[in-house]
Amino acid sequence: MAVKTMEELFVHELSDIYSAEKQLTKALPRLAKAASSEQLSTAFETHLEETRGQIERIDQVVELLDIRLKRIKCAAMEGLVEEGKDVIETVDAGPLRDAALIGGAQKVEHYEIAAYGTLCALARQLGYKKALPLLQETLDEEKATDEKLTMIAEGGGNQRAASQAA
Amino acid sequence: MAVKTMEELFVHELSDIYSAEKQLTKALPRLAKAASSEQLSTAFETHLEETRGQIERIDQVVELLDIRLKRIKCAAMEGLVEEGKDVIETVDAGPLRDAALIGGAQKVEHYEIAAYGTLCALARQLGYKKALPLLQETLDEEKATDEKLTMIAEGGGNQRAASQAA
Repeated sequence: MAVKTMEELFVHELSDIYSAEKQLTKALPRLAKAASSEQLSTAFETHLEETRGQIERIDQVVELLDIRLKRIKCAAMEGLVEEGKDVIETVDAGPLRDAALIGGAQKVEHYEIAAYGTLCALARQLGYKKALPLLQETLDEEKATDEKLTMIAEGGGNQRAASQAA
Repeated sequence: MAVKTMEELFVHELSDIYSAEKQLTKALPRLAKAASSEQLSTAFETHLEETRGQIERIDQVVELLDIRLKRIKCAAMEGLVEEGKDVIETVDAGPLRDAALIGGAQKVEHYEIAAYGTLCALARQLGYKKALPLLQETLDEEKATDEKLTMIAEGGGNQRAASQAA
């Protein structure tokens, strides 16, 4: 499993995020179901569709570069998914759980922002000119999702949770 | 372990990041030692000092609000620390390992950016006027560290790794 070249590092990082995205496609339907606000539930469903598209983009990168992904399991995403399950178990359905789900989802988005940011930097250095725009498109999507979640939280989610708690 | 109010959600999230920061203070000296470039090694050491300051700020928030943190272990940070160890085991010391370490560290920073972002949003909603600037200060530090890491990567780290690999 030694990584000796920058190309191998790229493959390693791509394999890691591939595993993360796969785990996410399993977690997102559960999150959509656990959300009370329709806006949040829809946001999770939309992101599930996006995540499937992102996996397809990874497949395209693999084909373009004629590389082979490694079978690794992204440990960080495992932890993040675990935390999401924990929220569903410990917080009753309602605005408060929605606020907690948004917090968890933003951790996921930021993990992906960092991962695709690194992949874009590596692709740039390696001169992967056809792969780069695919990775950049996903990076932009993740950033947009993070901003959408902030808007949902600020646009009432947290305020409703505060009044519920008062 | 049920979370029934927004105050309890705040305590839960604060306990999670407290665990994450504690884990990080153990991991950072290892990362500083594993880095080859002096710039990166110094950045990890500086961030260790900052992390200690951030833990102190959490202690101040705890005191200000007269709350009690829960003993939880942040599973996501456990995964991130695991990935850092993995890098040290699989990539030989040099510019390539440095590039991989920077990628991992940026995942950590983004985890923290998301966590403190949520804590700031909750503090704002809950009217925690004295705690908010402490959390905001840490959030700003994490963002600055992420930017510094990008600069180190772009300012030669990844380029040196590419030429090593070529």
